[in-house]
Amino acid sequence: MPSLLPAAALGLTLLSVPLTAQNTSWRSPDPADLLYLELESGRVVIELAPEFAPLHVANIRRIAQSGFFDGGAVVRSQDNYVAQWRIRTPGPDESAPEGVATSLPPEFEVDATGLPFTPLPDPDTYAPEVGFVGGMPAGRDPATGTAWITHCYGVVGASRGGDPGSGSGTGLYAVTGHAPRHLDRNLTMVGRVLVGMEHLTTLPRGTDELGFYATPEEYAPILGGTMASDVPPAERTRIEVLRTDSEAYRQYVTERRTRTDDFFVHPVDRLGLCNAMPPVRVPGGGAR
Amino acid sequence: MPSLLPAAALGLTLLSVPLTAQNTSWRSPDPADLLYLELESGRVVIELAPEFAPLHVANIRRIAQSGFFDGGAVVRSQDNYVAQWRIRTPGPDESAPEGVATSLPPEFEVDATGLPFTPLPDPDTYAPEVGFVGGMPAGRDPATGTAWITHCYGVVGASRGGDPGSGSGTGLYAVTGHAPRHLDRNLTMVGRVLVGMEHLTTLPRGTDELGFYATPEEYAPILGGTMASDVPPAERTRIEVLRTDSEAYRQYVTERRTRTDDFFVHPVDRLGLCNAMPPVRVPGGGAR
Repeated sequence: MPSLLPAAALGLTLLSVPLTAQNTSWRSPDPADLLYLELESGRVVIELAPEFAPLHVANIRRIAQSGFFDGGAVVRSQDNYVAQWRIRTPGPDESAPEGVATSLPPEFEVDATGLPFTPLPDPDTYAPEVGFVGGMPAGRDPATGTAWITHCYGVVGASRGGDPGSGSGTGLYAVTGHAPRHLDRNLTMVGRVLVGMEHLTTLPRGTDELGFYATPEEYAPILGGTMASDVPPAERTRIEVLRTDSEAYRQYVTERRTRTDDFFVHPVDRLGLCNAMPPVRVPGGGAR
Repeated sequence: MPSLLPAAALGLTLLSVPLTAQNTSWRSPDPADLLYLELESGRVVIELAPEFAPLHVANIRRIAQSGFFDGGAVVRSQDNYVAQWRIRTPGPDESAPEGVATSLPPEFEVDATGLPFTPLPDPDTYAPEVGFVGGMPAGRDPATGTAWITHCYGVVGASRGGDPGSGSGTGLYAVTGHAPRHLDRNLTMVGRVLVGMEHLTTLPRGTDELGFYATPEEYAPILGGTMASDVPPAERTRIEVLRTDSEAYRQYVTERRTRTDDFFVHPVDRLGLCNAMPPVRVPGGGAR
């Protein structure tokens, strides 16, 4: 009865361009911009975006160097929305981490003048222009002259309270579902998860309001949070990201738009921003 | 040091409209259209869409009634993409399920004439018009006169091989990440998960190509698959869905577009199709 088991795939062959692209089309992210968040199930590698959020990124580097991610926890997992975590609370005899701000001015958008921007060709529901600034999905508005990181799957932001200036990076979240783009320009976005999203997305969903865990016993412990530049080279995660300003990325976008594979009866010739994230690969291995 | 722990929420208060809406704004889905898929972690409730895929839905009802979902398995979990499952293979002394087709003509789109359609106001990257047909997110094209269910988070389709007519519902998948809208009109969509998506999205990711599990030992067993109409009323999952043709749903869309909550420094006044899915509630309880 093999015919009862339909062909397994959905016609989703890995696209060929990035894997065959020349090495110059790939970049190794700067270790000073890579945060390793260690969960029980493995490492989450986050590329930070100092060009969009210099104050928050500098603060996150200081938190990592203070050791205060260690002993923190994922406190929220809301299905089709976000996983949210926070740093450790200092013990009764312990000082707060030196030099770490607990609130910072909002960095919701930046001046787009001179910012390298690789535009995508298709209309977007939420922003006048969309594309990529380095490895970050971004919106841009000619009317305001500003650009901002958009809430795509895997993008990381700084949680905050009602005051726009109440975020700092001591609390962070990653998008784990369909892009909640209405949040764009309302929170400071600090980067994007390159590897290890599954460690956040497979966490049990919280049962309290908004997906918070009902009890601290349900929290997912954070075992450590370190900048890659503070980790011995041999212990770093080896990854490369396709440059969005490369010819190979342009081909990748074309291929994903046109879908010439026979599987596609109705190739749509459109590509949404959050479906165009630059591929990540292990040097010498396959694309992620 | 409470200030080190930022206010937990992202300003994401549950919206008020649907919960206060009159009961006539909510519908109880027809038990003959509800498939209960039982995983080890709990029940996934799928509302089928016979108006879009009458042949596939009839076949899925026959599969459920044959008992062949029991002993099936989730065989694929690809991060930010899909979870995919299939029915049990008949044993050596067992007949194939009677009346169950192993391939069916494609039902990728339907004639839009006379199909009730609640349009959304904002532009979509992939389709000329988007909105809802009953509980299903849909695209519509005035040029072709057709409509189709779109690949939003939680939407369920029939897997197939290279032949467009090789799907049948014996293999199914649910979208578990950002909407892969390029698949629209290339697969037969059969419905939407109303409750229990977390049982599919928290499954470990498969390590083989395209997120397939590398060994059968990793499969997530399906303990049963039954139409709600074949389950005693007392054992049915009590749920209601906000009617997309109601005034309450119209208010819900307005509220999600305008975001008058003080949290929003830059309310965007836009709403994407996959961010406008009709809420589900437990009668007498809260919204899901």
